[in-house]
Amino acid sequence: MLKIKSFDKCVFELGKLPGIGRKTALRLAMYIMKMNERDVKELADSIVDLKQNIKFCKECGGLSDGELCSICADSYRDKRVVCVVEEPKDIFIIESSGRYKGVYHVLGGKIAPLDGIGPDELNLQRLIDLACENKVDEVIIATNPDIEGETTATYVYKLLKDFDVKMTRIASGVPTGGLLEFSDDITILKAIENRREMY
Amino acid sequence: MLKIKSFDKCVFELGKLPGIGRKTALRLAMYIMKMNERDVKELADSIVDLKQNIKFCKECGGLSDGELCSICADSYRDKRVVCVVEEPKDIFIIESSGRYKGVYHVLGGKIAPLDGIGPDELNLQRLIDLACENKVDEVIIATNPDIEGETTATYVYKLLKDFDVKMTRIASGVPTGGLLEFSDDITILKAIENRREMY
Repeated sequence: MLKIKSFDKCVFELGKLPGIGRKTALRLAMYIMKMNERDVKELADSIVDLKQNIKFCKECGGLSDGELCSICADSYRDKRVVCVVEEPKDIFIIESSGRYKGVYHVLGGKIAPLDGIGPDELNLQRLIDLACENKVDEVIIATNPDIEGETTATYVYKLLKDFDVKMTRIASGVPTGGLLEFSDDITILKAIENRREMY
Repeated sequence: MLKIKSFDKCVFELGKLPGIGRKTALRLAMYIMKMNERDVKELADSIVDLKQNIKFCKECGGLSDGELCSICADSYRDKRVVCVVEEPKDIFIIESSGRYKGVYHVLGGKIAPLDGIGPDELNLQRLIDLACENKVDEVIIATNPDIEGETTATYVYKLLKDFDVKMTRIASGVPTGGLLEFSDDITILKAIENRREMY
């Protein structure tokens, strides 16, 4: 450390962010010093604004400016198809694929006993309510295809299977553009298990 | 985009930083939302402070809180050994190795004709003055060992070679902990050329 207070402080604060180590923090700080003052102000303000102004949609639990997120508030979206995701950020990922026209439900995590997260920590009540009140035709479970995600998917499936709701799970397989030789055994296994007839 | 103004804005601003793409910006924004308000304020303030309070040392051109940086102001550092670096951040890298006891000189770049940077764009006058006034015994040229860095090193060498100053260049070779099989041809070539007798 060179004992330059404002520099060291900024490197320290940036280094707290996930995936940003000391060298990256140094590089970012050097870059920030070269930015013009207005851009630096914009960056800092946007960080504070983000924390202060973002809410969670009271319907789906996704990120929102107001009470309802833009997806739940959109009358063109099919409210009878609900895609269940672990975190709000998963909504961005599915939305950027650009085809899904249903709505979402954010669980707020996945069942991970080792981290002390059980079903009680997840937001499941709304799913039960939707199913009870017959407000949904299909629930697509889009938790991650890892152990905790699969456990969570199974849990949600068992929770809703006795209602009159079609339950589906997103496909697992070899990623598009991926190579068989770089895929792990389980991925290959699932890709073969879930093979489909060609048209 | 989900059209959540404060979120999109923050992702956009973070995404302008070097090495931070859209996915990383998303991840950082999600993390910032989960931080407590005080930490977010600290982060944003440190960014603004950095821009507003950092100066360049009037001696060496490195980063500083005041007129002189902590290295130039340190009476224990050997002012007669000057290490020439391209950018202020290179000082951090050399300092963190923890052994160098001389002072620095920041060129502010390297000769790169393709980017329109010639010797006139570099801070060379102080080196000439130091040599002229016989204020320096050794100049260590620590520009990067790439084409532009080597060109710059040669230029500085030619500029000062007629003065009574010992000129040295940092060693190039196989990095410590590196493997020969992962080193490129030029590195191997230099490592053999610059071989030293074993003790």
